[in-house]
Amino acid sequence: MKAEHLSQIQAAVAAVKERKTIRRFYFVACGGSQASMMPIQYMFDRETSIPSAIYTSNEFVKATPKVLDDTCVVLTISHSGNTPETVRAAELAKEKGAVSISLTNLVDSPLWKACEYPIHYEHGPEADPNDLSKVILYTLAFDMLNVVEPSEKWVKGAESLNNLAEVTERIKAKYADFGSQWGKDYKRETVIYTMGSGANYGEMYSLAICLFMEMQWIHSNCIHSGEYFHGPFEVTDFDVPFVLVKGIGATRELDERAYNFCSKFSQKLAVIDEAEFDLTGIEPGVQEYVAPLLAGTVVREMIDSLAHERGHALSVRRYMWQMEY
Amino acid sequence: MKAEHLSQIQAAVAAVKERKTIRRFYFVACGGSQASMMPIQYMFDRETSIPSAIYTSNEFVKATPKVLDDTCVVLTISHSGNTPETVRAAELAKEKGAVSISLTNLVDSPLWKACEYPIHYEHGPEADPNDLSKVILYTLAFDMLNVVEPSEKWVKGAESLNNLAEVTERIKAKYADFGSQWGKDYKRETVIYTMGSGANYGEMYSLAICLFMEMQWIHSNCIHSGEYFHGPFEVTDFDVPFVLVKGIGATRELDERAYNFCSKFSQKLAVIDEAEFDLTGIEPGVQEYVAPLLAGTVVREMIDSLAHERGHALSVRRYMWQMEY
Repeated sequence: MKAEHLSQIQAAVAAVKERKTIRRFYFVACGGSQASMMPIQYMFDRETSIPSAIYTSNEFVKATPKVLDDTCVVLTISHSGNTPETVRAAELAKEKGAVSISLTNLVDSPLWKACEYPIHYEHGPEADPNDLSKVILYTLAFDMLNVVEPSEKWVKGAESLNNLAEVTERIKAKYADFGSQWGKDYKRETVIYTMGSGANYGEMYSLAICLFMEMQWIHSNCIHSGEYFHGPFEVTDFDVPFVLVKGIGATRELDERAYNFCSKFSQKLAVIDEAEFDLTGIEPGVQEYVAPLLAGTVVREMIDSLAHERGHALSVRRYMWQMEY
Repeated sequence: MKAEHLSQIQAAVAAVKERKTIRRFYFVACGGSQASMMPIQYMFDRETSIPSAIYTSNEFVKATPKVLDDTCVVLTISHSGNTPETVRAAELAKEKGAVSISLTNLVDSPLWKACEYPIHYEHGPEADPNDLSKVILYTLAFDMLNVVEPSEKWVKGAESLNNLAEVTERIKAKYADFGSQWGKDYKRETVIYTMGSGANYGEMYSLAICLFMEMQWIHSNCIHSGEYFHGPFEVTDFDVPFVLVKGIGATRELDERAYNFCSKFSQKLAVIDEAEFDLTGIEPGVQEYVAPLLAGTVVREMIDSLAHERGHALSVRRYMWQMEY
């Protein structure tokens, strides 16, 4: 990781450390950025007794939770640094005295200026993998946890992110054929459901709303594996496609149960099983939380193939960035 | 409300009052029962500084949040009283010393026995409207808020629920034709999206997963009005149907923005506007939170008509209660 990124993270974490009392961690963003923090919020819920919550930015701005003051930490993310409601959320957090931390790809963007502790990340194939948003976000999260619930596993966890690029390449190679075939098999589908639980819900939410709905105009819905049996499973049929992640964490049993049922009644269930990932190099104590990033690598292979087979580039939009809304 | 229901609520609220410190309110259930508590969690988030969170039962059981002890209140709901993961959640709460409160339609059910403070509600057309789950749940919620954030509005709010049946009848009559026509117009659809925010998200979640997916086998997804512009809106097209609730609360602006966009690009947007509801009789300070129940009345008119037009009774299931899963 570049020294400037590391020092931006350190400044934010030092500010968290300086607060005598922390009553809340809030994670606030929209769409894919919100999705990227869902596993972080899940991790905080399980690992610290300080309450945390996640919000889509405009709900946080308009229906602000009762507790927002200098005992709070608010983390916002916007890739462009330009999402108005996320900028407003970071500003509001700063106004109320909270530790306002933001991640963005654009230095000096409105988000950069709105918060107190801006952190830059890089993007695209030219970037050093250690400067990508996922590494920056997880390093920040582990470092904050180490302030409020000190443990060697957070230190080792952050260090082990240095190996993430290598682990990612390994998994990418392993699932290249799987992804390529999946795109060929599913290119005619008009509805594809996604399913996951625990730390993986966010990755499946992102697959549904960003990759299928936004980038492929395919109808979708992310079903929580635990909710599947309480309504959604009635849409299951031999020709209804699902993508399910089986996690390696505490909720794996939920995913297994959804798998056992869905595989019986749908002939179109694709499974990403994190138990088959070779996670060597990632600190065992944080593997449950890091695994969704690698499920995301498999998802990327699948969606790249799907987009290619459909002749529908992932970059095409009909509304986003095309007009005022 | 029947005296026995009132005294069950009072026993639960007294237990909450007796705790010196309350660090968390947890709302835990599955499917429609979980959905019914979403507006309650939203209300707690806005009205009390005590943190609250909502979970699907199995996630709460398997990935239990770090804080679960005698400083917590856990509210569970299961209509049958038989949902195994909800029973387990209530049991777990009791084991950990939390105030474990459950709502169910079945006295002496496993859930009834698993918790410490069981509360019965009635169901169906023969029931007194003041003994239905929504009145029982909201009375309990207002009474608990009155313990932790005392205010006349909770007392008046609870009293004004006596008028809910009358308000409901008024709205039912007003929207009968609208609902009936909607069912005729949309009977051929295979995908229908739902949209809402704030206190209405739960009602729209329930419409998507229980009414459309479970009871009509129609593909659906509940999109948060604030998230719509960050991915999902790209599926909007002239022939893609949506049902949107415009709320009367703090997030109405989000719903308005979604409405303004969606109505431009879809010819199949149905709107339930809570600003058009005559809420006379409901305490003004709680109208934002009660309005979703009345949006639910309109939804019921719509879905009854849709089910009739499609010849697909709402009671039909292919998996639920038909087999082990």
